[in-house]
Parts: sequence; structure tokens; C-alpha cells
Amino acid sequence: MLSHVDTSKKTLIVFSGDFDRVFAAFIIANGAAAMGDDVTMFFTFWGLNALRKPTKQKVSGKTGLQKMFAAMMPRGPGKLRLSHMNFAGAGPVMFKSAMKAQNVMSLEELIESAQEQGIKFVACTMSMDVMGIKPEELIDGVEYVGVASYLGEADEANVNLFV
Amino acid sequence: MLSHVDTSKKTLIVFSGDFDRVFAAFIIANGAAAMGDDVTMFFTFWGLNALRKPTKQKVSGKTGLQKMFAAMMPRGPGKLRLSHMNFAGAGPVMFKSAMKAQNVMSLEELIESAQEQGIKFVACTMSMDVMGIKPEELIDGVEYVGVASYLGEADEANVNLFV
Amino acid sequence: MLSHVDTSKKTLIVFSGDFDRVFAAFIIANGAAAMGDDVTMFFTFWGLNALRKPTKQKVSGKTGLQKMFAAMMPRGPGKLRLSHMNFAGAGPVMFKSAMKAQNVMSLEELIESAQEQGIKFVACTMSMDVMGIKPEELIDGVEYVGVASYLGEADEANVNLFV
Repeated sequence: MLSHVDTSKKTLIVFSGDFDRVFAAFIIANGAAAMGDDVTMFFTFWGLNALRKPTKQKVSGKTGLQKMFAAMMPRGPGKLRLSHMNFAGAGPVMFKSAMKAQNVMSLEELIESAQEQGIKFVACTMSMDVMGIKPEELIDGVEYVGVASYLGEADEANVNLFV
Repeated sequence: MLSHVDTSKKTLIVFSGDFDRVFAAFIIANGAAAMGDDVTMFFTFWGLNALRKPTKQKVSGKTGLQKMFAAMMPRGPGKLRLSHMNFAGAGPVMFKSAMKAQNVMSLEELIESAQEQGIKFVACTMSMDVMGIKPEELIDGVEYVGVASYLGEADEANVNLFV
Repeated sequence: MLSHVDTSKKTLIVFSGDFDRVFAAFIIANGAAAMGDDVTMFFTFWGLNALRKPTKQKVSGKTGLQKMFAAMMPRGPGKLRLSHMNFAGAGPVMFKSAMKAQNVMSLEELIESAQEQGIKFVACTMSMDVMGIKPEELIDGVEYVGVASYLGEADEANVNLFV
């Protein structure tokens, strides 16, 4: 059977919440969108942290365990850690400083650019349930879906990456 | 040349042995199988630990180095570590507790479900040789192959992920 | 729209600089090349360290921050760390010893074999700018490109992995 793969579609599963991996995912996503591709980013597990609003949100209905998760995990792109050479937060500062010196867009700018370019942000509801992350805690413009939705999109794409 | 890609086939390389990554792989695999896809999971390196039987198996022919590897690596899904916030084992306990509270299937159940759904488990013999893992130490129903076999399957699939 | 996916092409993004992940990437790449596939490896972030020459190169125009990065990151395949059980360098020694005992090619041999088989090595110029890695510091035969070039290649491939 010949597939109906549309070369203009890409999906990325953003599983990692490491600054460097999330950054790479957004570089690829923005690059593809700039080339005219439809791009869907599926945020799951630690990757959800990249979409968190930077301030604590008032939400109800969290268990004690979920409150603990929420408190321990970074809130938003400004708080993500490096996968290597994190040095208790000094690594990301160094990295961001080097990025700025090279006129590379910041992660915050890349996220904004992604939304402006129409990249679809979808968040995995199952991970959100487990980690106790509520929709109010994530930035606007995110859709809430399950794995079946991701698989449906991936079926139509020609590049599917797990980051 | 038009490809003969069958949209109903997926492959996942399970390289990581981190609880969270293995869990994500099984969620995707089970989801795809539930949608009628053929799924092959290729376990290599640390990912092999997810298929280990939980108890020490009597096997012969291991070198001292291989015995050391075997002793240091987790035996089975119940012993896998989290990639972040492992806290000497407290992290996975918290995670599993949160999963249970949300009625999310456990990793053990996902593995069982994957086998019931006919998902093909293949183990990388080269990694097994290096790490000294013997077939008797892995759960039943696993095929033993090399990278060429993975590549043959990936050629027929439309979604190929490296986890 | 039917795609013009050529089943004989593969791409790998080598983001990780962990010995085990880089090793897995080269096993897959060499395997695919041996089966007659065109393979492109896109080295970015920590993955660039796998292509560094093992000795310090005389280069000019680095900022203080870039010199710090360069000094802290491993130079070449012989210096990469394991993602798990690194044990301050003892892990990779154990691994390499086990690989040798099983007649598995070393990472250095796999890199050489990849180049002999015509696998294309491309390095991400943006990561190089940020980390301050200069072309003179990488092994010969590497092309220097941006993310658009990667995406162009991935569009033509049927297996695209992020390692």
C-alpha cells in the first residue's frame, strides 16, 4: 500500500524538559514552519514544564503528591535545567549568555515565534493527570489530547522525532 | 521513487532504561497497537533492563565484567529509575503512586498488554553480548536480532522513534 | 499527496554526546550504509564532541565563555561519558573492555567505517557558534550547515531519528 504521507508535515514529541533538548526541538520546529511545513509539538512528561507559566497559579483539586511534583518541577522555559553541565543553574546562565552573544533567539522567543508561525502545541493529558499539572498552569493556545491524537498526526507526517 | 510505506506500522527503539522513557514508549506502542498498527519495539542497551526477569537467573559463561554489569543494572520494570528526580528510588515510588491514583496502567501492565496486543519485542544481540545479558534472563516472547533486522522493519514503517 | 520518500535514505540527529548514545547512532548508521542506504548524521550540541579532534587545537576568536565550554567538554570519541554508570570514567573503560572482548568495533572504528562507507557528517553551525567550536577543531570531512539543510535531507528520508 502506498502511503498518503504529506512531506509538509512534521511532529515532535517533547518528552524531555532539559533546556538544551527543548531548545533543539524548538529550533527544528521553527525551521520546519519557516519552510512552510505544518508542525505539531506533543508535550509530555518533563516536556510539559516548558509550557508552564512562570508564576504559581491558583488551582484546586491537587493531591499532596501532585503539589509536591508541581513544586519540584521547573516553571516555564526560564527555569529549565541543562542535561549536562547544569552546575546548579550556572550552566543554563552560561548557555543563554553565549546564545545572546551569538544573536541566537532565546527559548522564550522561539516559543513565541512557534506560536506566531502556527505551530500546534498539544499537551498529553495523561502526563498532566499523573503530574497534577492543570490547564490553567500552562500558557495559552495549548490543546489537550491523548496519545491517539498524536498517533493520528504522526501518521500524516514524514518526520516524527522523539526529543 | 515512491515508497511502499505502510501507514499501519510503527517501530520504537527503546535505548533508554529510565522508567519514564520506557513508560512513554509503551504508552505509544500500546496506543498504536490499539489503533490496529503493527508495532515492533527494539530493545537495546539500557532498554534491555525493562525486559529482565525480576529475579537473578542461573546462567553460565559470563565474564567477571559481565557479572558486574548484570549486578549493577536494574532487573525488570519494577526496578527502573527515573531520568529526573529519582531521589534514590523515592521518585519512582511517587510516580507509581500518582499513576495508580489516576488509574493509569502500571509499566508491568503495559508490558503485558503490549504482548497481548501482539506487539513484537526484539532484543539487540550485540548489546546483550556487550552487557552479558543472556536470553534466559529476559521475559518470554522476545526475539533476538541485530541492527539489520531493525532497519528492515523501520523501512516498512511510517513512524520510527528513538526513545 | 503521495510523497517521494526514498526508502534508501536515513538521517540521524546526534544531539547527545553520551558515549552509549553516540555508539548506538553509529551502529545504526553503519548498518544502514552497509545495506546500501544513504545516511546523513547531523551533529548538534553535545553530539559535536564526538567529532572533536582529541588534542587542543590552536584557534582564535573565542570568547572567554567559549573557551570555558571548550575546556569542559570532551574532545573526541575517546573522552565521551556514559549516560549511566559513568563512575567518573570507569564506566566507559568497562564498556570498551566488554566491547573489545565481544569483538565489537570501537567507536573510533565505527566513525572511520562511517566515513569510508560515505556516510555524510554534517555539523550544526548554530550550536558551534554558541559553544564556540571552530571547524578546525573537528575531524576532516565534515560539512557545516543549518537546520534547514537537515530538514531538506529528512524530507527525502524514510527513517529520521533523534538520538
